[in-house]
Amino acid sequence: MRELILGGARSGKSALAEARAEAAPGEVVYIATAEAADDEMAARIEAHRARRPDGWRTVEAPQALSAALLEAAAPGRLVIVDCLTLWLSNRLGAGADIAADQATLLAALKDASGELVLVSNEVGQGIVPDNAMARRFRDAAGRLNQAAAAACEQVTYVVAGQPLTLKTPSA
Amino acid sequence: MRELILGGARSGKSALAEARAEAAPGEVVYIATAEAADDEMAARIEAHRARRPDGWRTVEAPQALSAALLEAAAPGRLVIVDCLTLWLSNRLGAGADIAADQATLLAALKDASGELVLVSNEVGQGIVPDNAMARRFRDAAGRLNQAAAAACEQVTYVVAGQPLTLKTPSA
Amino acid sequence: MRELILGGARSGKSALAEARAEAAPGEVVYIATAEAADDEMAARIEAHRARRPDGWRTVEAPQALSAALLEAAAPGRLVIVDCLTLWLSNRLGAGADIAADQATLLAALKDASGELVLVSNEVGQGIVPDNAMARRFRDAAGRLNQAAAAACEQVTYVVAGQPLTLKTPSA
Repeated sequence: MRELILGGARSGKSALAEARAEAAPGEVVYIATAEAADDEMAARIEAHRARRPDGWRTVEAPQALSAALLEAAAPGRLVIVDCLTLWLSNRLGAGADIAADQATLLAALKDASGELVLVSNEVGQGIVPDNAMARRFRDAAGRLNQAAAAACEQVTYVVAGQPLTLKTPSA
Repeated sequence: MRELILGGARSGKSALAEARAEAAPGEVVYIATAEAADDEMAARIEAHRARRPDGWRTVEAPQALSAALLEAAAPGRLVIVDCLTLWLSNRLGAGADIAADQATLLAALKDASGELVLVSNEVGQGIVPDNAMARRFRDAAGRLNQAAAAACEQVTYVVAGQPLTLKTPSA
Repeated sequence: MRELILGGARSGKSALAEARAEAAPGEVVYIATAEAADDEMAARIEAHRARRPDGWRTVEAPQALSAALLEAAAPGRLVIVDCLTLWLSNRLGAGADIAADQATLLAALKDASGELVLVSNEVGQGIVPDNAMARRFRDAAGRLNQAAAAACEQVTYVVAGQPLTLKTPSA
């Protein structure tokens, strides 16, 4: 099954993804998309890392997420991607063709076997940003979240640590 | 029935409104509130327009929304307003009395016959904006969304393309 | 019972908290955390105050919230705290140790008797803010909301005045 876990900053979305993985019977691979570009980000990455069980394998994929996902996914295994919006931000920063990237990622999501838990940020519920780059990111993140939600059997929205089911396999 | 469809940027709220209209048996009128003030906005408007079926009538009402709504609404017809927050932004830009505008719009919503689908942006879930104008817009949008939700029989919140019912006719 | 009412700017969260208090059989104490630092804030405070019934007692606690909460709470009484995020902002402005503050507040929440209704802002669903102080506030608010939600038996998310239950005592 594929699940998208979506929430705001510090909403508890990563913790929920990790709880899913802890409850899974098999092997866990954690694909981290964060890049330690500055001290603040390095501290965040380290805090996330320290929280993860020793038995999990961590793969860093700030850019080549689709390849990492296809390589990591396997029957009986659970793969966490944390998170889609950081990856998108890295790809925009690298001047990538975002529409093509999104298509490739969606194909990888469909091809991947085993369990997938995708973490993503909701970034579109504030005031329209002043600068064009932030608006571009916001639009691309909204499109990516919609596409990922459509490709997943389960979508969970997290607010203040409380999960709210937006889509279920039975729906 | 009146429905308010509320969501963040690129959340799929317009697409949901259009899906409602496609499922409706009668005539569809699409009231667009966007103003093509720059190339970016012109491109957005064009993308929205290209997506709409040929049979729908489009009315542009960046300022005089209440009059357009009352003129368009009719028994057996479905009217989409896309979107309230752009209209609000246009009215603020024109120096209008927002409280009076809101009262007029709410009266029009109550008087309008047929089916109404109102699209609006949630803009109040980010950090308090630095500039006073953005804070004023954010407050006015919150008030307008609350008032519109109270006037509608159905309220749907869209996150990543997934609709979540906040209010139903039977509730 | 303890309830956290969470929502964006002008979402109707204070009005919902006040409706809870109006429905309560006993005495009501309203703990206001706002500081009238400028005219805009003074006007907001006054608008909130004018809305409240005369019978309610108002306590101002822009900084010493935990002490005010413990002093106000009593069996048969309902205490509103409006709101946690303004208090957090005041504490950050005062250079306080936020983690210690949060721990003290959570202990007070657990010790407080009677009914508690806590109001808080969702601020993490917009674009990542440009300035480090705003990011620090956003992170602290997210953590505080998660912790408060975990400590409360009921969590209600308000969007456009429509309440959505995220956690219930029976769940």
